[in-house]
Amino acid sequence: MKKLMNDPGDLVVESLRGMEAAHGDILRVSYEPAYIVRADAPVRGKVGVLSGGGSGHEPMHGGYVGPGMLGAACPGAIFTSPTPDQIEEATRALDGGAGVIYLVKNYTGDVLNFESAAELCVSAGIPVETVIIDDDVAVQDSSFTAGRRGVGATVLIEKIVGAAAERGMGLAEVTGLARTLNEEARSMGVALSSCTVPEAGKPTFDLGADEIELGIGIHGEPGRERRTIRPARELVEYMSEAIFSDLPFHRGDSIIVLLNGMGGTPLIELYLLYGELERVARTRGLHIRRRLVGNYITSLEMQGFSMTALRSDDRILGLWDDPVHTASIRWGS
Amino acid sequence: MKKLMNDPGDLVVESLRGMEAAHGDILRVSYEPAYIVRADAPVRGKVGVLSGGGSGHEPMHGGYVGPGMLGAACPGAIFTSPTPDQIEEATRALDGGAGVIYLVKNYTGDVLNFESAAELCVSAGIPVETVIIDDDVAVQDSSFTAGRRGVGATVLIEKIVGAAAERGMGLAEVTGLARTLNEEARSMGVALSSCTVPEAGKPTFDLGADEIELGIGIHGEPGRERRTIRPARELVEYMSEAIFSDLPFHRGDSIIVLLNGMGGTPLIELYLLYGELERVARTRGLHIRRRLVGNYITSLEMQGFSMTALRSDDRILGLWDDPVHTASIRWGS
Repeated sequence: MKKLMNDPGDLVVESLRGMEAAHGDILRVSYEPAYIVRADAPVRGKVGVLSGGGSGHEPMHGGYVGPGMLGAACPGAIFTSPTPDQIEEATRALDGGAGVIYLVKNYTGDVLNFESAAELCVSAGIPVETVIIDDDVAVQDSSFTAGRRGVGATVLIEKIVGAAAERGMGLAEVTGLARTLNEEARSMGVALSSCTVPEAGKPTFDLGADEIELGIGIHGEPGRERRTIRPARELVEYMSEAIFSDLPFHRGDSIIVLLNGMGGTPLIELYLLYGELERVARTRGLHIRRRLVGNYITSLEMQGFSMTALRSDDRILGLWDDPVHTASIRWGS
Repeated sequence: MKKLMNDPGDLVVESLRGMEAAHGDILRVSYEPAYIVRADAPVRGKVGVLSGGGSGHEPMHGGYVGPGMLGAACPGAIFTSPTPDQIEEATRALDGGAGVIYLVKNYTGDVLNFESAAELCVSAGIPVETVIIDDDVAVQDSSFTAGRRGVGATVLIEKIVGAAAERGMGLAEVTGLARTLNEEARSMGVALSSCTVPEAGKPTFDLGADEIELGIGIHGEPGRERRTIRPARELVEYMSEAIFSDLPFHRGDSIIVLLNGMGGTPLIELYLLYGELERVARTRGLHIRRRLVGNYITSLEMQGFSMTALRSDDRILGLWDDPVHTASIRWGS
C-alpha cells in the first residue's frame, strides 16, 4: 500500500487540518468531536442543512460546506459512520433557530447514529428532520444497508436543499423538497479497481486484470455482476438502462445528471463518458438541463465511475442555479 | 490495461465531444484541426491567451478555456505536442485584433510547433508573442526537454495572464507579465505509480511495491531519485526544500501555491499534503496568500502529487482574484 499520509490512524484528522488551512474563509473545523461547519454559522432564522458519513468519499461532504449548500458535515473514520455525539455537537453549532435537516445516505450505521443524534437534539429543543437518501438502483440490500444504498444523488440533493434553506424556506418545506428529490433520483456505479482502506492495508476486493464490477457500492460492496471490461459506450448504455428504466424516466423529462469519478479515474475518461451519456439521453428523449462532470463522491483511489439522474422541473432548476460557495462546488458568488 | 474508453485512438476526440456537450455555454470545439476556444471568441480588442500541449493532463488546458483565463487550447494526442496547423487555426479563431500570446510548457516538440505556428500567424499579420514556462526544479534537461520542464506554474500563469488580458492589457505588457510570473515560480512532483498511455497499453515505467519517484515529470520522465515511500510530512519537506531554496524564496514573501494531484490521488490525501505544506511554509516565514488544492495538471491516472509556489505581490494577487469562468476554475462570475 502506497498512500500520501503519515500514520493511517491520523489521515482523517490531518486532512481536516489541511482543509481548514486551505478554506478558512468558507468553513471552520472542530476536532473533538470532528465536524466541519460554515464559517458564518449559525445563520439566524435559516434552516441548517447537515450531512455526514464515513470519510474516504471526498469532496463529499466537507467540500460542500458553505453558503448555498451544507451548513455542516460530520466525517467519520474511513468508511465508518460518524458518532451521535459528533452529529449532536455539529447540530448545536449549526442551528440558527429554524431547525436542522439531516441528509443521510442509507447505510445502517449512518441511519442509526443520525437517529440517535436527532433524538438528543429534539430533547434539547432543536427541531430536527431526517431524510434518508437511497438512489442506487444496483442492488436491494447490501453489505451495510437494508434497502437501496445512498450514493450520487446525495450531492445533487445537498446542492438543491442547501439553496432552499438559503432562500429561507422553513424546515417542513425543505424536508418535503428533500424527500421529493430523493424519489426523483436514480444512480449506478461501476468499478475497474478496488480501493485500499489505509488501516486495512490491502485492497477491499480483488478484480481480475480484465474484470469490472457493475453496480459497485461506494465502499466496495458487491454489485450486480462481474464482467470483462467493455467499451465505454456499452457501459454507459447498460447503466443508463438500469437507471432510466427504474424510476422510470419518460421521454420529454428534464434531468440534472452527475457523471462522477470514483477517485482514481482521469478526467479525460469522465468527459468521454459524459459524451456517451449525453448521446443516450438524447436518444431516449431526455433533456439534460444541468450537469456535473468530475470527482464528487469517491471511494478513495478506486477507478470507476457512477451516473446519477434527477428528474427536475423549473423550480428545482432554479434552486440548482442559485449561488453556491463551497470548497468544491462554486458558482454565482 | 483497464480504461473507460472505446477505441484508444478515439479517446481524445471523444473526450472533447463530451466536454463540448457539457460546457457549450463556455466553449466551443473544433475537431479538424482540434482546438477548444471561448464561446464568445474572438473578443474584439483584447489579447488572446492560447496554450496547449499533449492530452492526458486534464483539466489542463481545455478546462481553463473561458472568460478570465484561456481564450483557446490546442490538445495534441496523449502526451504528444499539438501540430502547427492546430495552433495556427486556433490563433485565427481567437485573435480579436490585439494579438495572441502563446503560453508554452518547455518540451522540445511543443516549443518547435508553437514556434512554427507563430511564424505562420505573424506572416499572416497576427501579432504573436511566446512565453516558455520552465518551472520544474527537479532536473536540468529531461527525456523531452532541453532545460527545465514546464509543469504546475502553467496553471497559475494561465489564470493571472488571462485576467490581465481580460482587463485589456496590451500584448507587450501581458507578455512581460507572463515572463515575470515564470521567473517567480518553482515546482516539483513525485509519483507513487506510473500511468498507462492508452495506445501503448502498458505502464510507462515500473515502480516497486514500496518505491516512489522523486522529481517525476508529467509524462513519467525520470526524476531525481527513487526511494522507498515515506511519510507525507517528509515528502513535503523534501520537495519544499527543493522548491523554496531554488528561487530562492525569502522569509516574508507572499506566495500563491498549487497542491496538485497527478490524477489518481484521492482528495483526502491532497488536503493532508496541503496541511503539511502550510506548516512548512509557516516555519519558513512564507505567507500563502492564495492556493489551489486538487487535480489541475495530471498524468492520466498516475498516483502522486506536485507542489508549485509563485512569489506574488499585490498586483498579482489582484489579478488572481479577478473573476474567472471556465469548466474547472471558476469564481466571481
